Amino acid sequence: MSTAVPTDGPIPRGGGREAIATAAREVFQERGYHGASIRDIARRAGLSLSALYYWHPSKQDLLAALIQENTLDYFRRCDEALAGVGDDPATRLAALVGATVLYRVERQTESNISNREWRNLEPEHAERLKELRVKASTIWSDIVDAGVAQGVFHCDDPVDARRAAQAACNAIAEWYRPEGAVTTDELIDHYVKIVLRIVDHRIS
Amino acid sequence: MSTAVPTDGPIPRGGGREAIATAAREVFQERGYHGASIRDIARRAGLSLSALYYWHPSKQDLLAALIQENTLDYFRRCDEALAGVGDDPATRLAALVGATVLYRVERQTESNISNREWRNLEPEHAERLKELRVKASTIWSDIVDAGVAQGVFHCDDPVDARRAAQAACNAIAEWYRPEGAVTTDELIDHYVKIVLRIVDHRIS
Repeated sequence: MSTAVPTDGPIPRGGGREAIATAAREVFQERGYHGASIRDIARRAGLSLSALYYWHPSKQDLLAALIQENTLDYFRRCDEALAGVGDDPATRLAALVGATVLYRVERQTESNISNREWRNLEPEHAERLKELRVKASTIWSDIVDAGVAQGVFHCDDPVDARRAAQAACNAIAEWYRPEGAVTTDELIDHYVKIVLRIVDHRIS
Repeated sequence: MSTAVPTDGPIPRGGGREAIATAAREVFQERGYHGASIRDIARRAGLSLSALYYWHPSKQDLLAALIQENTLDYFRRCDEALAGVGDDPATRLAALVGATVLYRVERQTESNISNREWRNLEPEHAERLKELRVKASTIWSDIVDAGVAQGVFHCDDPVDARRAAQAACNAIAEWYRPEGAVTTDELIDHYVKIVLRIVDHRIS
């Protein structure tokens, strides 16, 4: 069973870390965290086990690194989308939905790993990454709360409205198929409208 | 590692199947399908491996049986909620949301297994259970489509509206904690309002 694993050789430079990340994403996506073996990940990356352990001391450490990278990438995209769109909560929420839908479609595997595997972080990593998780909610709730405070979002259940909006956008990564009939622009258009309805956006 | 597994004994009657289902739900919930071992499930159920294999020839068969049972239970609850509420699409959608939220809260583990592990069904079972999956969407889309046809739901993206509504309700099983501040009645009230906004329900 281990014959396909490269024998231990020199620790690779440069591409090693990225090859591991790519392989790990695939294996976690296919088999889930507990079903993924570090040996399969090394094999898929074309690396020796010792090379993998050079970058990540454990499977748990590898999961935490992936989730952290994915989340920071998502935040970067949100920041870019929100920079320069002004203060109007509806415009800001639309920009956030656009960035989120795009991330779910363009980073589908990363999205699914983050959505599915957070619960498999052990306490040490969960505690360390908790602020990222809080921030991922806060990006949404800050805008929803601003809209409610300004009287343009009329939902009287902003916490559940925020959860529903995030869940609807997260689910896209589960069902989206690039070969499907709907374009990314249409998808963004649909989800912006849906999320603005969820928060009950009305000007008058 | 296998010392805790009961030695093979007589095949149990009656309670065996239920004990396996309970143990399997727990182990699948904790470790996911690929991380769950049939040996752990037998141990947790207090049964021998041969007793487990008497009921389910494989882990895959066990997963399919659980998903089928969960889904049929959910359908029964939907049927009950929809019986006798009349034809008004908004009333029917509210009843469906109520049944779904209640199922997510009362059958949280079953909900998470069904949501997370459908993708791990192998082709034979996936094909056999496909009609259940289609029906789970159709229960929602029939009502959404009726509301659009009658001019009481104004969404122009009924497929994505239906997906968003289902995703919002499904996610409850992921974050809900019985000890939390919100009661089940409040939760149902919030999600009925949110889903009616998602389909853009307006009488006028």
